[in-house]
Amino acid sequence: MKLSAMGEDAVVAALTRALPCGRNVRIGAGDDCAVIGGLRDTWWRLLKTDAVVEGVHFFRDEKPERVGWKALCRAISDIAAMGGSPEHALITLAVHPKTKLAWMRGLYAGLRKAARRFGVSIVGGETSRSPGPAFISVALTGRVERTRCVTRSCGRVGDAIYVTGRLGGSLSGKHLDFIPRLAEARWLVEHLKVRAMMDVSDGLAADLPRLARASKCSYTLDKKRIPLTRGCTTEQALADGEDFELLFAIAPRDCAKLETAWKKKFPKLPLSRIGALIRNSSSVILHSKHGHDHFA
Amino acid sequence: MKLSAMGEDAVVAALTRALPCGRNVRIGAGDDCAVIGGLRDTWWRLLKTDAVVEGVHFFRDEKPERVGWKALCRAISDIAAMGGSPEHALITLAVHPKTKLAWMRGLYAGLRKAARRFGVSIVGGETSRSPGPAFISVALTGRVERTRCVTRSCGRVGDAIYVTGRLGGSLSGKHLDFIPRLAEARWLVEHLKVRAMMDVSDGLAADLPRLARASKCSYTLDKKRIPLTRGCTTEQALADGEDFELLFAIAPRDCAKLETAWKKKFPKLPLSRIGALIRNSSSVILHSKHGHDHFA
Repeated sequence: MKLSAMGEDAVVAALTRALPCGRNVRIGAGDDCAVIGGLRDTWWRLLKTDAVVEGVHFFRDEKPERVGWKALCRAISDIAAMGGSPEHALITLAVHPKTKLAWMRGLYAGLRKAARRFGVSIVGGETSRSPGPAFISVALTGRVERTRCVTRSCGRVGDAIYVTGRLGGSLSGKHLDFIPRLAEARWLVEHLKVRAMMDVSDGLAADLPRLARASKCSYTLDKKRIPLTRGCTTEQALADGEDFELLFAIAPRDCAKLETAWKKKFPKLPLSRIGALIRNSSSVILHSKHGHDHFA
Repeated sequence: MKLSAMGEDAVVAALTRALPCGRNVRIGAGDDCAVIGGLRDTWWRLLKTDAVVEGVHFFRDEKPERVGWKALCRAISDIAAMGGSPEHALITLAVHPKTKLAWMRGLYAGLRKAARRFGVSIVGGETSRSPGPAFISVALTGRVERTRCVTRSCGRVGDAIYVTGRLGGSLSGKHLDFIPRLAEARWLVEHLKVRAMMDVSDGLAADLPRLARASKCSYTLDKKRIPLTRGCTTEQALADGEDFELLFAIAPRDCAKLETAWKKKFPKLPLSRIGALIRNSSSVILHSKHGHDHFA
């Protein structure tokens, strides 16, 4: 069977069954990051890899600075989604031998800019030849207090679902210069009990069901409350992907506190209550195009 | 300027200048692994990424199990070269949507086999689309006692240079099913003061000068002592690359002890004293084809 006929989630599920896993692996494949640490450790380690591929995530005529920014910020967004702080990055490049050094320098300028802004050390990597498209893979480590680590899987029936920022239309430029919601995620885990969280990378229509499924819940989604990027339709907000906003669940009793404190702390960034987790059932409110599937 | 006109070492040097680096980064870009840890920590963390690219490091008609084995074992070899033990791996794949699931399953079977054999936990990764060749990037963490961590850069004038195994002819098959010298490297750092070490991935002719340069030395190389793979010439042993043997430097006073103990512990694996580190000078004994350069 070909991957394109299976869809990304089924491919990943088929491959990640029965992987060798040691005893301090708290979370392996399936969440935004892997989580490593002892049950009593103060700090847990986060591990993430992510890749951008020429012709898929960017095109050659794009400014290389923006490609470098995107490559690192995608991984930072995943560290943020666990409630953590990024630490050390390694960059693996495969590029065609005819690539110009100026392009590589631009790429690294973007990587460095993102690293400085978000407190990341770039500690190495590997450079190789590609027979065709450029590949940029980022491995990023991070850390999070054990008591503040947030997964996708601890949402509960009745939890309110929030999303930050505005969704949709990422391809018009945002996918290359988005700001990972690191400060916002850290503030959330420091001030509230966030039950489940992830970043919206494949579109709300793909990612909200993932969060609900990981929490063994279904969900409601109030389409009218989805925060739209100016000029975007609801369908685009659901399906475009690469928003890199935070999607999270908290107990209903915390909603008022959250909304008041958020407005004070982040007055410029919208926070929208878009739905809720409900008892696991086959009925799902959302009827829409699906989000981004890498193999579709 | 194009990369092919510069050569790999110059490209890497140009890109890795002035990277943002935090205070606990003991070694950043330029050694086999990055090393993270406090000056008094018992354990230091090792970080490594490495990629294999279709059409460069393997071909599509190759058994995917062997490709998976190679992808993970390359990174394990780098952890070994620091004297460390591997811990957690993340796998980043970019493959064409027409790739068959059976190929991916085979790849993962090879990854799992290597992970089990060398005590690695595979804790996640990312799967993406590639417009063309398959790209497999492995991020691997490891750990090493601070007192046993070996870099490339602490070799001293007079040190003897050794290499394990036999060199050359890797493309006839060894590059896909080599055994990373993890047990041997751990034994070395546990029983001797290894001054400098690396793995031979780009060929002795490329890697020995790197080790010497990092240690601010020149070197002598006794070509007649280079251990040849059966059927290989000295030129092949120098230039083929992908041997994944250990290349290391120890004080001359430790040579007798090393050679006696090695024969007892690893009777089947040759250990060859091939040269020495000498005072930094422009004269280098070796006159030969250069080893593998990714952009040449």
